[in-house]
Amino acid sequence: MKIKNVEELMEKIDYKFRNESYLKEALTHRSFSNEHEKSKNFDNEKLEFLGDAVLNLITTEYIYNSGKGKNEGELAKLKSQIISEPVFSAIAAEIGLGDYLYLSNGEESSGGRKRKSILGDAFEALIGAVFLDSDYYTAKNTALKFLPDKINNLEDIEGIIDYKTVLQEVFQSKYKKMPEYEILDTKGPDHNKVFEISVKLNNKIIGIGRGKSKKEAEKRAAKEAIEFIENKKRIQKI
Amino acid sequence: MKIKNVEELMEKIDYKFRNESYLKEALTHRSFSNEHEKSKNFDNEKLEFLGDAVLNLITTEYIYNSGKGKNEGELAKLKSQIISEPVFSAIAAEIGLGDYLYLSNGEESSGGRKRKSILGDAFEALIGAVFLDSDYYTAKNTALKFLPDKINNLEDIEGIIDYKTVLQEVFQSKYKKMPEYEILDTKGPDHNKVFEISVKLNNKIIGIGRGKSKKEAEKRAAKEAIEFIENKKRIQKI
Repeated sequence: MKIKNVEELMEKIDYKFRNESYLKEALTHRSFSNEHEKSKNFDNEKLEFLGDAVLNLITTEYIYNSGKGKNEGELAKLKSQIISEPVFSAIAAEIGLGDYLYLSNGEESSGGRKRKSILGDAFEALIGAVFLDSDYYTAKNTALKFLPDKINNLEDIEGIIDYKTVLQEVFQSKYKKMPEYEILDTKGPDHNKVFEISVKLNNKIIGIGRGKSKKEAEKRAAKEAIEFIENKKRIQKI
Repeated sequence: MKIKNVEELMEKIDYKFRNESYLKEALTHRSFSNEHEKSKNFDNEKLEFLGDAVLNLITTEYIYNSGKGKNEGELAKLKSQIISEPVFSAIAAEIGLGDYLYLSNGEESSGGRKRKSILGDAFEALIGAVFLDSDYYTAKNTALKFLPDKINNLEDIEGIIDYKTVLQEVFQSKYKKMPEYEILDTKGPDHNKVFEISVKLNNKIIGIGRGKSKKEAEKRAAKEAIEFIENKKRIQKI
């Protein structure tokens, strides 16, 4: 097991720990502490418990101020989508947090460094550690380097809302057919392509999406198509 | 409807609002805003949503640092008991928060000022309002004027853990009899009495509790008796 240098991690999150033992605790998975007699009971579970509450407040404050939810019910629904393993593990993957974790040999060899539950928990623990090492506002700044991008693109996060599946269900139940996606345009150089994809209903385009991958563009097109169908329904009801 | 002056409330919580409209929002129950066209959609539900997350972090931080829970599981269990309507409504009752609320006439006449759900929500909203008006640490100071006393005396809060009922169940299933409580001593002047009450099993005292009411003293005696029985079980197992 080769664990990357934490200096690099601190650069990525732009926070330098005063007490690096908090950081080490956040990076230690229970499987490691179980395997090593010396570090018994030294794992990230209590920090995860703390970090979960810190992220809960950071997220709540952010969406409260964003004007995204019109009422308490909408805010609560949005919050439950954000405070979730898919979002936190996506951020962890973005930071490459898996490369810094202390895992048991068993977890290591069975792909633990890429396991979403381990990654999501480690991100929570990391924010808990920043909170303990500094204060709420520093932890908030650290989390808000990554959270808004996820909050504003929830539809792109695997496991949150799968718009393509939703659209397919709507098409099958309502129109007895499958949505058809078509590439309208591809722009940019190979390493930075942008796809533009449409979805049609009866040969009429009802949704267009752009994205850095076909999948991303299709998801966004599906979302737009769902909104189109929902609005049509609303108009017909009037 | 006569609502008490908020100056008095601010003295009680020892926090002076810069923007009193946050305080008014926290004190406005949905029933009031529904009844008054002018204040439509001006109620404490969004602040309650925010305050819930603030109190969640304050509580989590407090019990994390208290050493009360040995592991994440114990901490989570304790937290779920604290972040609850019984605890928050008990604090609200202590502050007399009900006297400051804007309620509809219907809620008013059906005893809304004493309803636990309304009181608990209003306390959450109040902490949310302090947070918005100042910062996390000020909100934390405000909440920690009241929370630790509740956290350290959870057994006295109605609706949390009913030790007398638990003890009764243990007695009936294990010994086929009812616990017997006996007043051992009563001290102090009439307005500040302290009761000392025992619980016996087979004529042997297995728990003693003190409290300002018989009920409080009995609950504590029951708690001690449960611990006695549990320890006995543990000793027998060894």
